[in-house]
Amino acid sequence: RPRSTMEEPSGTHTKRKVVAVVGGGLVGSLNACYFAQRGFNVEVFETREDIRQAKIVRGRSINLALSHRGRQALKHVGMEEKIVSQGIPMHARMIHSLSGKQSPIPYGKKGQYILSVDRANLNKELLTEAEKYPNAKLNFDHKLQDWSPETGLMTFARSDGSTEHIEADLIVGCDGAFSAIRKQFLRRSRFNYSQTYIPHGYMELTMPPIDGEFAMKPNYLHIWPRNTFMMIALPNLDKTFTCTLFMPFEEFEKITSGDEVMEFFQKYFPDTIPLIGPDALRRDYFRLPAQAMVSVKCSPYHIGDKCVLMGDAAHAVVPFYGQGMNAGFEDCIVFDEILNQFDEDLSECFHKRTKKTPRMSWRYESSIDADLGGSLQMRAHVNSKWFLFRKHVDNILHLLMPKTIIPLYTMVTFTRTRYHKAVERWHWQDKVKHKCFLSLSLSLSVLQIWTAQS
Amino acid sequence: RPRSTMEEPSGTHTKRKVVAVVGGGLVGSLNACYFAQRGFNVEVFETREDIRQAKIVRGRSINLALSHRGRQALKHVGMEEKIVSQGIPMHARMIHSLSGKQSPIPYGKKGQYILSVDRANLNKELLTEAEKYPNAKLNFDHKLQDWSPETGLMTFARSDGSTEHIEADLIVGCDGAFSAIRKQFLRRSRFNYSQTYIPHGYMELTMPPIDGEFAMKPNYLHIWPRNTFMMIALPNLDKTFTCTLFMPFEEFEKITSGDEVMEFFQKYFPDTIPLIGPDALRRDYFRLPAQAMVSVKCSPYHIGDKCVLMGDAAHAVVPFYGQGMNAGFEDCIVFDEILNQFDEDLSECFHKRTKKTPRMSWRYESSIDADLGGSLQMRAHVNSKWFLFRKHVDNILHLLMPKTIIPLYTMVTFTRTRYHKAVERWHWQDKVKHKCFLSLSLSLSVLQIWTAQS
Repeated sequence: RPRSTMEEPSGTHTKRKVVAVVGGGLVGSLNACYFAQRGFNVEVFETREDIRQAKIVRGRSINLALSHRGRQALKHVGMEEKIVSQGIPMHARMIHSLSGKQSPIPYGKKGQYILSVDRANLNKELLTEAEKYPNAKLNFDHKLQDWSPETGLMTFARSDGSTEHIEADLIVGCDGAFSAIRKQFLRRSRFNYSQTYIPHGYMELTMPPIDGEFAMKPNYLHIWPRNTFMMIALPNLDKTFTCTLFMPFEEFEKITSGDEVMEFFQKYFPDTIPLIGPDALRRDYFRLPAQAMVSVKCSPYHIGDKCVLMGDAAHAVVPFYGQGMNAGFEDCIVFDEILNQFDEDLSECFHKRTKKTPRMSWRYESSIDADLGGSLQMRAHVNSKWFLFRKHVDNILHLLMPKTIIPLYTMVTFTRTRYHKAVERWHWQDKVKHKCFLSLSLSLSVLQIWTAQS
Repeated sequence: RPRSTMEEPSGTHTKRKVVAVVGGGLVGSLNACYFAQRGFNVEVFETREDIRQAKIVRGRSINLALSHRGRQALKHVGMEEKIVSQGIPMHARMIHSLSGKQSPIPYGKKGQYILSVDRANLNKELLTEAEKYPNAKLNFDHKLQDWSPETGLMTFARSDGSTEHIEADLIVGCDGAFSAIRKQFLRRSRFNYSQTYIPHGYMELTMPPIDGEFAMKPNYLHIWPRNTFMMIALPNLDKTFTCTLFMPFEEFEKITSGDEVMEFFQKYFPDTIPLIGPDALRRDYFRLPAQAMVSVKCSPYHIGDKCVLMGDAAHAVVPFYGQGMNAGFEDCIVFDEILNQFDEDLSECFHKRTKKTPRMSWRYESSIDADLGGSLQMRAHVNSKWFLFRKHVDNILHLLMPKTIIPLYTMVTFTRTRYHKAVERWHWQDKVKHKCFLSLSLSLSVLQIWTAQS
């Protein structure tokens, strides 16, 4: 006996379509607002308990960098201002050299910044917002067991052992990098899929306030680039910093005692020891094992007009470009735009997708996160001076030729330029820069010869 | 109540290890011979009924090209001679131009050839061979439901609705590109996986004998290279040819009537129409839809010392290089070599695998099938004259410098050079050839200038 849709408000003459959003994380809860705003009957299904009641939410990063794409998506449901007011602007990276020297590199032009936001708080705000719509319902403790791409019938298991059946017109899989919804996709022919773990793991450490104030300058994303690894730190509203250490797993495994932790930090991050605190460091390093990072790519993103994947379920990325959440949020806008374009005719929306012109392939771009991730990982490999130099050159070129040379980071972070277009353009710019340098050095050589001869 | 191992022959004082081979296809049945030969208690589990009793085996290609790697693997269990005697040697490709002109391109040096073998017959022979070992048992109609990487406990469903539980010391997943064993791998962290469908489908057509004889020269692999598609034909013992048409799915879909089939063949494969027969062509084109082709890559290939993937389950490839079966068969040798190296100590075999030196990464090479597949798909794109020319140049260079320039095809097909080494070498050779051409043209230019001046 599948549970039918929610009660229809009396007076409506057509039955509202039911949209089941699977996953009540960041993208799922934002999507619930989007679909509710359009008037669909929205049901959100989340495996876990309501995080607004839970004590500790484990296993995911604590804070995130919110940038243009994410903000635009929040704006659309009237949430931008609220979330921005709870975030901490970061105007620049602050590069920490081994000697402890700090050098800021602005993220963009004056006034451009990204925001450090608290993942759990953002999620809670979005859930609360979604719940305000009378046509949206949040179902916690609902673990997806099975679903049918033919009928849209879903089966959920409850922790009391009972199961529930629900039929939806559209299932939106927002259930993250290890999506349960996606398993059905994998069973179908001609579904392309890849999951790739990078050799790096990550570990979070907390840097407490000093005398009630931030231990470092707050309005920066602090970076300690070291050869094969790096640490970053983002500020939190409670005046702590969350430090994230990225390092190959084999390096993590080499460190097995508190003394080795200290030795390691002494060697690579000496300036952070007094700030994190030697005792906390010795203890917290062993609190949780290093976490893996996966990149997921797939195509297509939908099965017929019954199901579509969004966010990490469709395109999980490594965190180095700060785009996981932002790209997932942008999915909500893009799908909204498509719904507008086709007057909410779902079969039309998805049908077009399969045609040559990929009108709906808003995440065709996922193919580029190798590029993005690559460029950022490079950053960790390169010594900080070279990185500083390159960034400065890019920024200067951008100032000189603002319409020709746009740093990749700017396109990704401060515009809604499609990711693959940004990367294409970046490659093109690289060629242009290369040619400029060549001409320049050629001119200099000619000049030298000419000077020598005369 | 898990079924325990098979009855121990009286007189053995140590309990034999149980190896469960999941999948009774080509690689599974050959592997059964390998493990049985070493004295393990082997249990093969196959979902389908015994193909030796089945009437028609559907869904997979009819014949395959057996080359050096596969032959070496068969030799090891004394099967080479028998299988070779049932195959048809193909000494060269026979390229069919649009005008009907046929040009042979030898596969290698004189005396080197590949063999067209019947998939079903080969599978039957291997099953029968495996059954000859008293310590090997074939279990048909056993569909894997679940298994535990911790205990090696497996659950199989029978078609009568019953289930069976079996515990094994080592589980060898040889259950093909859509491996059920591999599903457990996907649930684990840090398992890298990709499945990629190429845009091409394939369709098999039969070319009957004419007056009791082969309709074309039998000792060739016939190829009709056309722009985005191609057809190939391999000879069978019953004097038929199996033709395989490779074409993008969208092209297949354009053809919806017998007349359109005729028009298409008239335009691209006119010489095959009288040989296949116009009536058969009109009919058989619609017998089955075009089949998809998937390439699978993953790492690692094992979970602890409990389970290892081999063959298509570990590294399915597109068929253009004729290496799917050969690579799968070679897995059996490679694992056998590793068992020798570590005195059959499984934990030792697999433990080493995770270390830096990938002693057991016999399919690290899978990363190269993009290269292999790519080069072959290129072949279909390139017009036949250019293809002929390049092949001839390669062969001539090989004759002139047999130790320096070895065609990629030769390394892959007639040696056991590891695939990735073959590709590395090929890239290196390409650079050498490129430099030769450059020097040559430079010398010619200098000569021209010098001649003009004097």
